[in-house]
Amino acid sequence: MMKLPLPMKVRVPDAVARQLPKVVGPLGLGGIEPIRRLVSRALINTLGYSTTLRPRALSLASDYTSWLSLTDRTFSGRHLPPSTPEQQAALPAEADVVALYRREQLTPASDTSVMFMFFAQWFTDSFLRTSLSDYRKNESNHEIDLCQIYGRNIEATNLLRSMQGGRLKSQIIKGEEYPAFLFAPREAAKPAVFKPEFVGLFDQAFITDVILRSAPDAQTDTFFAVGLEHGNSTIGNTVMNIVFLREHNRVAGILAKENPAWDDERIFQTARNILIVMLLKLVVEEYIMHIGPFDFPVEAVPFIADEERWNRTNWCAIEFNLLYRWHSLVPNTIGMGPKALDATGFRNNNSLVLEQGIEAIMAMCSQEPAGKIGLQNTPAFLVDSSNPNWPSVEQTTVGLMRKARLRSFNDYREAYGLSRLSSFEELTPDIELQQRLEALYGDIDKLEWYVGIFAEDYPDYMMMGELMTYMVANDAFTQALTNPLLARNVFNDATFTKTGMSILKETTSLQEIVTRNAASPDAVHVSFSYGSQS
Amino acid sequence: MMKLPLPMKVRVPDAVARQLPKVVGPLGLGGIEPIRRLVSRALINTLGYSTTLRPRALSLASDYTSWLSLTDRTFSGRHLPPSTPEQQAALPAEADVVALYRREQLTPASDTSVMFMFFAQWFTDSFLRTSLSDYRKNESNHEIDLCQIYGRNIEATNLLRSMQGGRLKSQIIKGEEYPAFLFAPREAAKPAVFKPEFVGLFDQAFITDVILRSAPDAQTDTFFAVGLEHGNSTIGNTVMNIVFLREHNRVAGILAKENPAWDDERIFQTARNILIVMLLKLVVEEYIMHIGPFDFPVEAVPFIADEERWNRTNWCAIEFNLLYRWHSLVPNTIGMGPKALDATGFRNNNSLVLEQGIEAIMAMCSQEPAGKIGLQNTPAFLVDSSNPNWPSVEQTTVGLMRKARLRSFNDYREAYGLSRLSSFEELTPDIELQQRLEALYGDIDKLEWYVGIFAEDYPDYMMMGELMTYMVANDAFTQALTNPLLARNVFNDATFTKTGMSILKETTSLQEIVTRNAASPDAVHVSFSYGSQS
Repeated sequence: MMKLPLPMKVRVPDAVARQLPKVVGPLGLGGIEPIRRLVSRALINTLGYSTTLRPRALSLASDYTSWLSLTDRTFSGRHLPPSTPEQQAALPAEADVVALYRREQLTPASDTSVMFMFFAQWFTDSFLRTSLSDYRKNESNHEIDLCQIYGRNIEATNLLRSMQGGRLKSQIIKGEEYPAFLFAPREAAKPAVFKPEFVGLFDQAFITDVILRSAPDAQTDTFFAVGLEHGNSTIGNTVMNIVFLREHNRVAGILAKENPAWDDERIFQTARNILIVMLLKLVVEEYIMHIGPFDFPVEAVPFIADEERWNRTNWCAIEFNLLYRWHSLVPNTIGMGPKALDATGFRNNNSLVLEQGIEAIMAMCSQEPAGKIGLQNTPAFLVDSSNPNWPSVEQTTVGLMRKARLRSFNDYREAYGLSRLSSFEELTPDIELQQRLEALYGDIDKLEWYVGIFAEDYPDYMMMGELMTYMVANDAFTQALTNPLLARNVFNDATFTKTGMSILKETTSLQEIVTRNAASPDAVHVSFSYGSQS
Repeated sequence: MMKLPLPMKVRVPDAVARQLPKVVGPLGLGGIEPIRRLVSRALINTLGYSTTLRPRALSLASDYTSWLSLTDRTFSGRHLPPSTPEQQAALPAEADVVALYRREQLTPASDTSVMFMFFAQWFTDSFLRTSLSDYRKNESNHEIDLCQIYGRNIEATNLLRSMQGGRLKSQIIKGEEYPAFLFAPREAAKPAVFKPEFVGLFDQAFITDVILRSAPDAQTDTFFAVGLEHGNSTIGNTVMNIVFLREHNRVAGILAKENPAWDDERIFQTARNILIVMLLKLVVEEYIMHIGPFDFPVEAVPFIADEERWNRTNWCAIEFNLLYRWHSLVPNTIGMGPKALDATGFRNNNSLVLEQGIEAIMAMCSQEPAGKIGLQNTPAFLVDSSNPNWPSVEQTTVGLMRKARLRSFNDYREAYGLSRLSSFEELTPDIELQQRLEALYGDIDKLEWYVGIFAEDYPDYMMMGELMTYMVANDAFTQALTNPLLARNVFNDATFTKTGMSILKETTSLQEIVTRNAASPDAVHVSFSYGSQS
């Protein structure tokens, strides 16, 4: 017989859905499965439908709609059309905007740990990938595909695979498993070059000109061969890559044992299926949960995307890319006293990870507060350029925002169903900041979006302002839950094996993944809240 | 305020929806706008939901689900998993299957014209593009993008554009507009080479080795520079390309006049937006309407895809590719008597089009019956190879079907919500054919899908069997109506201009498009039904 379309699920009105977690969460009702599912569905849909849906008319390809702007995802998408030349002419100087971000004294986050910051960096580097040569373009696959350990394309994946037992190439150092080293033994006074087996993994020129420019020679000796060019740029990227590589090889080992007839290819692909969904689950149930302004265990509701109109081809927008630049999370140092790590210490420092092990690094980062997301809280080294030929990170960001000619903060609030603010007082209670913004913009309606989302005040139980919360949740839910591995035709034993399904069901936190891959399981403490203890 | 999701439209049950057009059509109620829309929506959704939705677990990348099978659309998709080795071992010899298609005597279609056949060829060549080097792969953009005149990628598009006034390159011959010629003046005894301005439009080796192999030298002199390699392979492809090139340049001229500030780029892109939707409208409202087993004017319901769960990223499946091989439509000759065109006459024959003009060619094709779709009705030149080194078209097709290891005809019927047939008698009343199939397969459950869809009997008011109708309509509706140009955020004056919207609204048939681009408008007669007269 013909199949009838599923009846539409009952919709909880938005205004109710937004309040539900705040009501249900503290009551502890999130532990009751049907309630958890109902509230999660209501919440995900409220955020998923909070603005217009994809496909959108414009991308950065052109200011009018063209076949290119509708289909070529190498151009970054955009939520709203560009601002007018008049609006652009009225904007303050870029340098004055950059200065708004400069931290004088660290304001710590109320709850968020440096481990969260590193996870966010590692996670978003995989799908927010602005082209260095053309600001309109990106190199994203527009999917959560764990390219951090698998590479961005099949050629890179094949270089990273051992081609035996479905495993990724790895090495054992002091009894523990790490990715293979990327570079050949260094010749004195010469820049690092790839080992022959990794030639083609990245563009050698990019590595030489960009990555190695900021890395001390001695550190490059321990750079790992991982999926992305920036995979060794912080101790956070490094520990996350180690953890997921170990987990991949662990799962591959289980699959190989249970399926002796399977070849390397099938074991690898099935392990990858499992690992990608494991990451998706962490992202929704641990990471977004931490971001969310509620004490409620959001569930990645099975097959929710199958029934929704927000399930359309992913396309990372320039706004999603920019709003995610949470540079204010970065602390001045990790730890205190003589052993404190400054930026030189937590960047390009695989030696430290090899010396201390992932347990110690992750525990240290989990106990350390990140900075609070907001203006006037980005560390100096990301605001002020150390080299006149290279703009700073925040200068690059403000420059990109300007080139993208985005509409105002209030226009975006409206586009996400939020009321327009009528004054700087409504934006922030900080009178000095009100005055500073008033002096720059004159009128709340002229406030730039990128400044507004960081200026917007929020209570301690949130981790960013209202508009940024809506925007990040909308793009995250509607592009993570649309992953093909979560679809009704795909999410089943045939795709993951029964064992794979069990592993996914039983894995609920990053802490668990690290623990089962640690030399000292008892020493593992991984948390996105610095106040908590394992 | 937050936007609430739209309430779900009332669904008409499938069993009712399937009967509606047959009831409503003959009563002439299709002319009443709300009824037309209601019935169209019910029908499109019935067909759109007749099988499982995309994303599907498998493609031709592998027999198990992998990240590649879920994301890499250079591999052809597949609706059902492969058959078992036991099922494959039980199949008859390929040559015996090919022989089932051989036409002894033409069985004409009840209604369908040769013009329909040429339109179908021209239309499907743009998105069904099996790779010649790897049967698992394809070169499709998976969208109706009018690449027939615009090329498959931006490099080709740029070679085909004049870069002035938003126009495509063209030439005037005897006062009429045609595409530019593709090849440089031919040197005696040497194969044709591209004009310098078209180098890179296609792979020269492919043209030399494949296209020119079957084209007489003299004919290549008048090959046009169009979007696809096979664009000059039949007089049908040629007239369709001429018509759409003329219409593009006509629309570009109007846009240029109305928008004096626009540059070439904006005019071109906007004209292309209009032309693609014009084609989509023809496809749904004239072409699919002709295929459909009903006398009902199906409407491309505005925004229907925006609200449906079948709106998922397009992915052409191997079944869609194979079921569309309507070789039995091809007549032995077009016309009768000494002036009749045989296959040599209607293939690679732009000279004829230049000599007679598009009006005469299209009128001739519109009055000529196509063959009836079915077994035992493919002309000899497509069944029997003329060269032992090259398989025939039907041999290639059967070979591809076998390599794809498709499930049985009955398995596909079940997958589309149709009852399994229990005997060859149920399949066809033709006793000789029943016996022939019984001798080959023994059991209706073992009948191969590709044979079954052509063997299935159908009444005169249909143009193919039940399963093929369901399958072609499902893939067509769910991949044509998902075109981004039809989406709610896109289908508006900003994308097409007010004039463009009017042109789209007023254009309801290919006849109209040809007429406004013809030197002799009164001589235009274009119809998918050979019995009709303009």
